[in-house]
Amino acid sequence: MAGKAEILRKLHQGPHILVLPNAWDVASARIFEEAGFPAIATSSAGVANALGYPDIERILREEMIEVVKRIARAVSVPVTADMEAGYGDPVGTARAVMDAGAVGMNFEDSSIDGSLADLASQVQLIEQIRAATDIVLNARTDVYLFGVGDEATRFERTVERLNAYHKAGADSLFVPGVRDAETIGRLAKAVNGPLNILATAGAPSIGEMERLGVRRVSLGSGPMRAAMGLTQRIAKELKGHGTFASMTDGAMSYKDANELFMK
Amino acid sequence: MAGKAEILRKLHQGPHILVLPNAWDVASARIFEEAGFPAIATSSAGVANALGYPDIERILREEMIEVVKRIARAVSVPVTADMEAGYGDPVGTARAVMDAGAVGMNFEDSSIDGSLADLASQVQLIEQIRAATDIVLNARTDVYLFGVGDEATRFERTVERLNAYHKAGADSLFVPGVRDAETIGRLAKAVNGPLNILATAGAPSIGEMERLGVRRVSLGSGPMRAAMGLTQRIAKELKGHGTFASMTDGAMSYKDANELFMK
Repeated sequence: MAGKAEILRKLHQGPHILVLPNAWDVASARIFEEAGFPAIATSSAGVANALGYPDIERILREEMIEVVKRIARAVSVPVTADMEAGYGDPVGTARAVMDAGAVGMNFEDSSIDGSLADLASQVQLIEQIRAATDIVLNARTDVYLFGVGDEATRFERTVERLNAYHKAGADSLFVPGVRDAETIGRLAKAVNGPLNILATAGAPSIGEMERLGVRRVSLGSGPMRAAMGLTQRIAKELKGHGTFASMTDGAMSYKDANELFMK
Repeated sequence: MAGKAEILRKLHQGPHILVLPNAWDVASARIFEEAGFPAIATSSAGVANALGYPDIERILREEMIEVVKRIARAVSVPVTADMEAGYGDPVGTARAVMDAGAVGMNFEDSSIDGSLADLASQVQLIEQIRAATDIVLNARTDVYLFGVGDEATRFERTVERLNAYHKAGADSLFVPGVRDAETIGRLAKAVNGPLNILATAGAPSIGEMERLGVRRVSLGSGPMRAAMGLTQRIAKELKGHGTFASMTDGAMSYKDANELFMK
């Protein structure tokens, strides 16, 4: 495990940007591994939706960990788990992630109601996680994602938070909700650790983000929501027209699907 | 529960064909329910792949039941579960499906090695399930799917088996592996119960199957394999080009995805 944590940590040091696809079940994790990604992330929203929950910590920590464990068992690359705000016990959650065979964790500073955690408290929690485990910690601030405070203050506030999280021991610094190249480039220069940006519609390409100084790009629930969109199109075509081209065109074969799990 | 079994049973009696989409997690089940399907099936291959297994009864019955239970809890329409060959204990499996809140079950007559079960033994198992539970039983024969015996004998052998299963108490009769309209039409006339055909590439449309006398069409692992194919395209585009159009084009929004689970 120590080896995998070290591998994941080094992937943030360049020279190339780390591209982390987010899985929500074992099938998606194995597909990402087979495509050659050097590490796999999980999506808390993707896992929650697959199990029937909205993405707001309604899922039990044990259910989230169970999926992380299945994924970590099925792939040989390092796995980093999105554990939201830590389910009321961030240190215990970090330990559970490591016990499940993953080596990294996302830890966010917003509550279910969209409000930001007190900065000093969040720093203390990061220090506690750091003291308790060797987990590769991706500290996330939701200033931009939830549009907290006056727009003019968001950049400074984000940088203040991320640098405090880095000083407290976070390995990488995550800012979802930002997609314009200019802000991304300024953030990459202003933060003291590897910057993680979320790939969304309208965000710069991976190559452009690398040039802007971003060290890590993840997809969040994007791939799972793409799969859900396709499932909806299959359902509508079947219900409306009685045909199934959106199901059969581009499907993985039964044989190829099973072979992903034969090792 | 008795009410839901009766609803599912009646959906096989016409006048319209029953179109049953197969889910593999709660998200897909909720999407199919929202699209207006009057009942939802599960796919054993889809569930197995999502949890990291190939589709050959390597999954534990308890794991399969856990997914069926989550799906049955999340939707209000009747759920019918694909339980392969019954995991070594078909009567216990039927009881577990009912306890999980589903009201129907697929029960197939092939073994993991592709060989067919002895006809008399399979009939006896169906009688035992019928005596033990009110489950809506979809009896499947794999003569065509596995190309068992000389091609000229398959039609007669399929009809012999399905009519024996019907006499033993099966509610509907499932023949995967057949997609030509002529054979489907002859099967619909020759079997004594509602015929279930699998929608695959090249199969007739739902309207055509209805005209041929088919009473139930299911999708098997088709939708899950479509989602896996899309995930693979997302992975390849991201890895090869550093872009994510196949992820963002047609994805369900984060808001819409979460709203599926807010009720």
